[in-house]
Amino acid sequence: MAAARVQVEAGPDGPGADRECPDSSKNSTILAPFMRAVDLIGTKRDGGSLDRAAVDFFVDGVTRGTWPDYQIAAFLMAVVWRGMTADETAWLTDAMVRSGRRVAFDGLPAIPVDKHSTGGVGDKTSLVLAPLAAACGAPVPMMSGRALGHTGGTLDKLESIPGFRVDLDEAAFKRAVATIGCALVGQTDQIAPADRRLYALRDVTGTVQSIPLITASIMSKKIAEGIGGLVLDVKAGRGAFMKTAPDARRLAASLVATGARAGVRTQAVITAMDTPLGNTVGNTLEIIEAIDTLKGQGPEDVTALSVLLAALMVVLAGVETSFEQAERRVRDALASGAGLDKLRRVIEHQGGDPRVVDDETRLPRTDDTARVAAPRDGYLSRLDAELVGRAAMALGAGRDRVDAPIDHGVGARLLARPGAALRAGDPIVELCHRAGRGLDAASALVRDAIVIADEPPPATPLVLGLVDERSAA
Amino acid sequence: MAAARVQVEAGPDGPGADRECPDSSKNSTILAPFMRAVDLIGTKRDGGSLDRAAVDFFVDGVTRGTWPDYQIAAFLMAVVWRGMTADETAWLTDAMVRSGRRVAFDGLPAIPVDKHSTGGVGDKTSLVLAPLAAACGAPVPMMSGRALGHTGGTLDKLESIPGFRVDLDEAAFKRAVATIGCALVGQTDQIAPADRRLYALRDVTGTVQSIPLITASIMSKKIAEGIGGLVLDVKAGRGAFMKTAPDARRLAASLVATGARAGVRTQAVITAMDTPLGNTVGNTLEIIEAIDTLKGQGPEDVTALSVLLAALMVVLAGVETSFEQAERRVRDALASGAGLDKLRRVIEHQGGDPRVVDDETRLPRTDDTARVAAPRDGYLSRLDAELVGRAAMALGAGRDRVDAPIDHGVGARLLARPGAALRAGDPIVELCHRAGRGLDAASALVRDAIVIADEPPPATPLVLGLVDERSAA
Repeated sequence: MAAARVQVEAGPDGPGADRECPDSSKNSTILAPFMRAVDLIGTKRDGGSLDRAAVDFFVDGVTRGTWPDYQIAAFLMAVVWRGMTADETAWLTDAMVRSGRRVAFDGLPAIPVDKHSTGGVGDKTSLVLAPLAAACGAPVPMMSGRALGHTGGTLDKLESIPGFRVDLDEAAFKRAVATIGCALVGQTDQIAPADRRLYALRDVTGTVQSIPLITASIMSKKIAEGIGGLVLDVKAGRGAFMKTAPDARRLAASLVATGARAGVRTQAVITAMDTPLGNTVGNTLEIIEAIDTLKGQGPEDVTALSVLLAALMVVLAGVETSFEQAERRVRDALASGAGLDKLRRVIEHQGGDPRVVDDETRLPRTDDTARVAAPRDGYLSRLDAELVGRAAMALGAGRDRVDAPIDHGVGARLLARPGAALRAGDPIVELCHRAGRGLDAASALVRDAIVIADEPPPATPLVLGLVDERSAA
Repeated sequence: MAAARVQVEAGPDGPGADRECPDSSKNSTILAPFMRAVDLIGTKRDGGSLDRAAVDFFVDGVTRGTWPDYQIAAFLMAVVWRGMTADETAWLTDAMVRSGRRVAFDGLPAIPVDKHSTGGVGDKTSLVLAPLAAACGAPVPMMSGRALGHTGGTLDKLESIPGFRVDLDEAAFKRAVATIGCALVGQTDQIAPADRRLYALRDVTGTVQSIPLITASIMSKKIAEGIGGLVLDVKAGRGAFMKTAPDARRLAASLVATGARAGVRTQAVITAMDTPLGNTVGNTLEIIEAIDTLKGQGPEDVTALSVLLAALMVVLAGVETSFEQAERRVRDALASGAGLDKLRRVIEHQGGDPRVVDDETRLPRTDDTARVAAPRDGYLSRLDAELVGRAAMALGAGRDRVDAPIDHGVGARLLARPGAALRAGDPIVELCHRAGRGLDAASALVRDAIVIADEPPPATPLVLGLVDERSAA
C-alpha cells in the first residue's frame, strides 16, 4: 500500500466533537497542478465529470503509488455509482495504456489483430481461432490470462502442453508474431501496470461491476499489445458476467467506442453463455477439443463461433475486405488443416511438444471418472454454465488464489446438451477427477446445474448480436 | 494502514486478459461467521441492508484493523451512495460506542447532559451554556474538539486561558463532574476509537457527506461520554455543513432518532449559520465574548442561543420539568452571576488562571489590528460566515494540519452586522493579526464575505426549528 500525507479537514462530526464550519472549497473546480485526490473523488461522488488532466492525475497516482489504496478505492466506488462519460472512459483507457509499454509492430504483412472474451465456461475458441486467423494471414499477437476463481484461462490450457512456454519477453513475442504469425503468451509486467493495481483493488472492494472500469481494464491491455484490430466476444447469460443481452450490448458498445477512440478497429459479437461452450471444461480436455475442432471434428458451437470470430479478425487485419470472403478463407484453413498446422508451429516455437496434436496421451490426464446421471425421464432443459465451471474448479482445474497450483488433467465432459431427450439414469456429465479429490463438491454442483423438464427447451441462438463502431456510437 | 490478504477473484477483465466466468456467489446472502468484507461492500453497493452482525463485523474490522483501509473506503463510499436505514445507523453507532470505553456516572444529583454543534463560525456557546446549565444543577460532562481547517474548536479556545488543561483522564473527568458539576475536556483515546480511524479515512476519501456516517460519528462519541441527555445545535446556512434548513432537519432527525435508540434523551435545535455567531471569531476573542455573555453583556444572538440550549439541557437533566421554568432558572443563573462563578471554578479546577474572568489582559492577545471597510454606501446584507472563518484561520487562529500550532490571540471582530446602514469607509470587520501574518489573505477573504446592497436584508430568525424524539420518528 502506498503512503500519503493524510490531511485531516473539518466536517460536522469529527475528529473531535463540537466541530465548526467545514471547507466547502473541497468541492470546487479542480485545476492542475493543484489537484488533490480528495477533490477528484468529490467531483465524481457528486456526479461531475473529470477533465483529461484529472484522469491523467488519477492514473499517474495509481501507477506511481502517490494515490494511497483507500483513495483509489473510494474513487472506484464513486465511478461504480456515477459512471463515466465516453470521454472519461477513453481518457482513462489511454492513460492506463501509457502507464506502461505499448508494443509496436513493424513490417508485418497485415494489421495485427486479437480477440478478447469477457468470459464464459468451456470457451476454448482462442486456441482455435488464433491459429486459423494466422493461417489466413492475419498476424495474431495474443496475450491471455490465467484461470482464477472457478474460471479457466488460456495460459493454463496452453500449459497443459508439455514444455509450452507462455512467458515470452517482448522481443521473443514480436519475433514469434513475425515468423509464425501468431504468439500465445501472457502479459509482461510492462503492459498496463496501472491496471494490475486497479484490478487487484477492484476485486476486493466490490468495484468490478462498472462498465467504464471494465472497458478501461480490457481495452488498455489490448491496446498496449500493439494491435490494430480487435474482435470482442461479449458473453451474456447465466454463466456470464453480464446476465442479459442488453447489459452485454451496453458493455460491447463501450468497448467498441473506446477501441475506436484509440485507433484500434474494434468489433463485438454478443454470444449466449447459459451452457458451457463445447463439450469440455478443463485444461487438457479443452486443448483436446480445440485440436479436434482444428481437425474439423469439433462441436458445432465451438466450430461456428471460432470461424465467425476468426473471419472478423481476418477482415480487421485487412487480409480480406468482405466478411463472406474472410469466412470462406477461414473455413478453407480449417478444412485444409492449415489452422492445425499453424497451431503445431506455435507449440513448437514456444517450446511445447507438437506431437500432442496427433497424440493426446502426451497431455496430462486422469483415468478416474464419475458420471452424473439424469434423475428422471425428460428433456435436459438447463446445464448451468457457471455451476459446471465451479464443479471443474472443485476438481482442481481452476484455482481460488493467484499462486495456487492447478491440475491440468481434471475437468468435466458434457455427454448431453440442452434439448436432449433423456431417460432416468442416462449420463449427462462425466467428471474427470484425480483420486476423488473434490468429487463430492463437484458432483453436487453438477446436480444443481441440471434441470430436467417435460418439454424440450426452446432453441436459443449462440450469436445474439453484433456491435461495430457505427452501432456503438 | 492495516494489511489484509488480497484474494483476487475473477471478473470479466482481469487481472489477465481472456478471463472467464466470474463468481456471482460474491453477492450472495451473508452469514456470520463466514462474512467477508467484499460481500458487505457488495451488499451496500447494490442497495441492500446489512443486519446487525454485519454492521458489528464492519466496526470490529475497523477497530481491530482486520479491514484494510481500502475496503473501509469503498464501503464508506457505498454508504454515501446508498445511505443506511435507521436500524443500520443505530447499530453502527452502537458498535462504535462499544469499540471503546463508555463512561458511567454514579451518584450524580441529576442526569448528565451535553450539547453538540454540527458547526458554525464564532460559536462560543459551549463556553457559556455549560457553566450556566451546571449552575442550574445539570451535570455537564462535555468533551469537545480542536480547531481544524478554517474552523475553531472549544479545546483551543479554552487553552487560550493560561494553564487550562483539557486532557483530564477518565477518573479526573468524573471527579470534576462530581465536584464542580461541569468538566470541559478533550476526548480520551478510549472514546469510540473506531470513529477516529473512520473519520480520518472519510476526510481523505470524500465520504464525510453522509447523514448516517455523520450521525454515527457524532452520536457514538457523545453516547460514550456517559450522558443521559443531549441537545444538538444543527446549523443550516452558508457557513454550515448543511446548507439548507430541510437538510439540517434531516440530519437532526437522524441524530435524535439514534440518540433515542441508545437510551439518550435527545433534542435538536436548527439554527441559522449564515453570519458568524456573535461579534468575534478567534480563540481569545471568543473566550472574552463568552465571559462577557456570562456577565450579561454578550451579544444578543450568543446570549439567546446559549440560554435556549442551556434550558433544554436543564430539562433533559431532569432538574426542571417545564421548559419555561428551566429557561427562567437559566436566566437567573445568568443574572446572578452563578454561571460566571461556575466558569471560574471550572477554570480553577482544570488548572487555569481564574483571574482571566475579571482581567482579559491575562489572555494571549495582539495589538496589531487592521480594518476592512464598506466599499460604498448601503446596507450590509451579507457577512459570509465561512469566509470570515477562513479569514481567521489565515491569521493563525486555526490550523490546516492536526499537529500545527495556533495563535490564540488573533482573529476577527465584527463591527457591523447584516442590516446595518453603512457609509463608504465605515469599518465592518477588524482583523486582529500578529505582525501582518496572513493579513493579505484574510483581508481578501473578508472583502469577499461582505455584500453591500441598497435595501436592508430581510430579518432572519436565529432558531429555525426544533426536532424532538416524536418529530424525528
